[in-house]
Amino acid sequence: MAVYTKVSAEEIDAFLTRYDVGTLVSAKGIAEGVENSNFMIETTQDRFILTLYEKRVDPADLPFFIAMLDHLAAKGCSVPPMIADKSGEKIQQLCGKSACLIKFLSGVSVTTPTPAQAFAAGAVLGEMHSALVDFSLERPNSMDHDAWRKLASDCGSEGLDKIFSGLGAIVYSELDELDTAWPDNLEWSVIHADLFPDNVLMLGDKVTGLIDFYFSCSDVRAYDIAVTHAAWCFAEDGSGFDKNISIALLGGYAKSFEISDEEREALPVLARGAALRFLLTRAFDWINTPADALVTRKDPTAFLRRLQYYQKHPEVFNA
Amino acid sequence: MAVYTKVSAEEIDAFLTRYDVGTLVSAKGIAEGVENSNFMIETTQDRFILTLYEKRVDPADLPFFIAMLDHLAAKGCSVPPMIADKSGEKIQQLCGKSACLIKFLSGVSVTTPTPAQAFAAGAVLGEMHSALVDFSLERPNSMDHDAWRKLASDCGSEGLDKIFSGLGAIVYSELDELDTAWPDNLEWSVIHADLFPDNVLMLGDKVTGLIDFYFSCSDVRAYDIAVTHAAWCFAEDGSGFDKNISIALLGGYAKSFEISDEEREALPVLARGAALRFLLTRAFDWINTPADALVTRKDPTAFLRRLQYYQKHPEVFNA
Repeated sequence: MAVYTKVSAEEIDAFLTRYDVGTLVSAKGIAEGVENSNFMIETTQDRFILTLYEKRVDPADLPFFIAMLDHLAAKGCSVPPMIADKSGEKIQQLCGKSACLIKFLSGVSVTTPTPAQAFAAGAVLGEMHSALVDFSLERPNSMDHDAWRKLASDCGSEGLDKIFSGLGAIVYSELDELDTAWPDNLEWSVIHADLFPDNVLMLGDKVTGLIDFYFSCSDVRAYDIAVTHAAWCFAEDGSGFDKNISIALLGGYAKSFEISDEEREALPVLARGAALRFLLTRAFDWINTPADALVTRKDPTAFLRRLQYYQKHPEVFNA
Repeated sequence: MAVYTKVSAEEIDAFLTRYDVGTLVSAKGIAEGVENSNFMIETTQDRFILTLYEKRVDPADLPFFIAMLDHLAAKGCSVPPMIADKSGEKIQQLCGKSACLIKFLSGVSVTTPTPAQAFAAGAVLGEMHSALVDFSLERPNSMDHDAWRKLASDCGSEGLDKIFSGLGAIVYSELDELDTAWPDNLEWSVIHADLFPDNVLMLGDKVTGLIDFYFSCSDVRAYDIAVTHAAWCFAEDGSGFDKNISIALLGGYAKSFEISDEEREALPVLARGAALRFLLTRAFDWINTPADALVTRKDPTAFLRRLQYYQKHPEVFNA
């Protein structure tokens, strides 16, 4: 949530001459997305987002993301495609970073979704999965089920217990249970893997765009439902599970794409996995960010609450 | 350069109903301005900047800034006036902070101005001073000449010498010289007091807006020329004085507003004062920001270089 690379107006102006998009009228660094530098750009013709990829995005993955967005856009999904320059290139270099010029989409991210908004988000997730059925590229999920034990070990039991005493034991016990229960009979797909309300642009009850595809990867398709469920159905601090949001989200999805019996049965375990994944990445950041640093550390406990809710309430995924 | 207060789309949507500006279409937190939280807002009717005032701006000063911007806008200066709500109010409360909705202006801030751009900036500074001749409100300059000794003492000689050994002696010697040489025969005015290239929006060689008036205050009018000169005529690190930029900036100003003989004579001293003011505020921030903090500390030495240039080259202000 910051601009990491300073890019001067003169540099943006020169950069835009590679494209057929008019000349620069306004450029503002925006606080958005994963750890990239983003600028909202207005030209004499249109508006765009200029993204410079910082260390969390591997430039080698950009062709995958571009192909995925092009595939989705071609199938009518509201995603922001990267703009090609005059010679057809979409990946540029700017200030020593890989950079893309991206179509600007209207809409805002809701903080407290209504059931109608959750239904729309679920429906768009299902449409995305439907559109990706014949998408043939793959990208490993660096934070998949197999990676969580390593992530826990990087945190260390002592590190986890610094967050609060006993967290280490909870994490290792859950890792063991998920190793036993993790499904191996489900369909895989390319998934978004990070569809928090932040990454869904809406106007009223209508989705105007899905954004921030930089965690997209190949994994169990229903795991994407689980991540989205964990992201949408609780208050930010993980309290206050909202049954109506849950019903709306799953109902919206099922309207667009089938949830198989096997997937429905596995969703409680997948949701525990999704909660554990965000618990662990937040725990790692928490342990490795000084308490007095000027970035806000996100409390891992917000996802422990979700995990424990899913442990106790597998029935929330019943049809 | 960050968004300090989180404001949800729902809160912005509700906030906008106080105004007659249409409904929310897009909202992005932007990295801009002094230490306020800023959002670029698009509605069905127009675009705006929403500013929430953080600790560096005293809400009690907002009526002064609003009156100043209204006065300037009424005289045709390109400044971004605050928008009045349906009941005529311009100062609101949002998320516990004072907040204003501000007209959006096109244009970008140049990093390496050309002489034509410096001429235009100087001319607009002169026009602003001309427009303020009959502006009757006053606001003390909390960082005026009288405040610098206190600021140096808050840094402490030892603190200054931590930046580099010898800086304390340089600062105290300059404070003594400025106490002797500081002019008391010059016209006062309300001034911008922070007209760095960052705060001038341009399209090509044309100024489209002056922004960020939150240091505006009453002081020696020509001190505003001195601040602007120190801000525009050097590389960011204070090296590479650019004579052509200096001539263009002063020429542009003189075209719009008279520089009296007394002012011209005093400019070398005023410019040393301007350099010392930014040296001291940067030194204070440097000393009070941990080296490993995630905000970039701005090097005070960039303004020591300007100070020493002005000490050696008073002739740059000759007509």
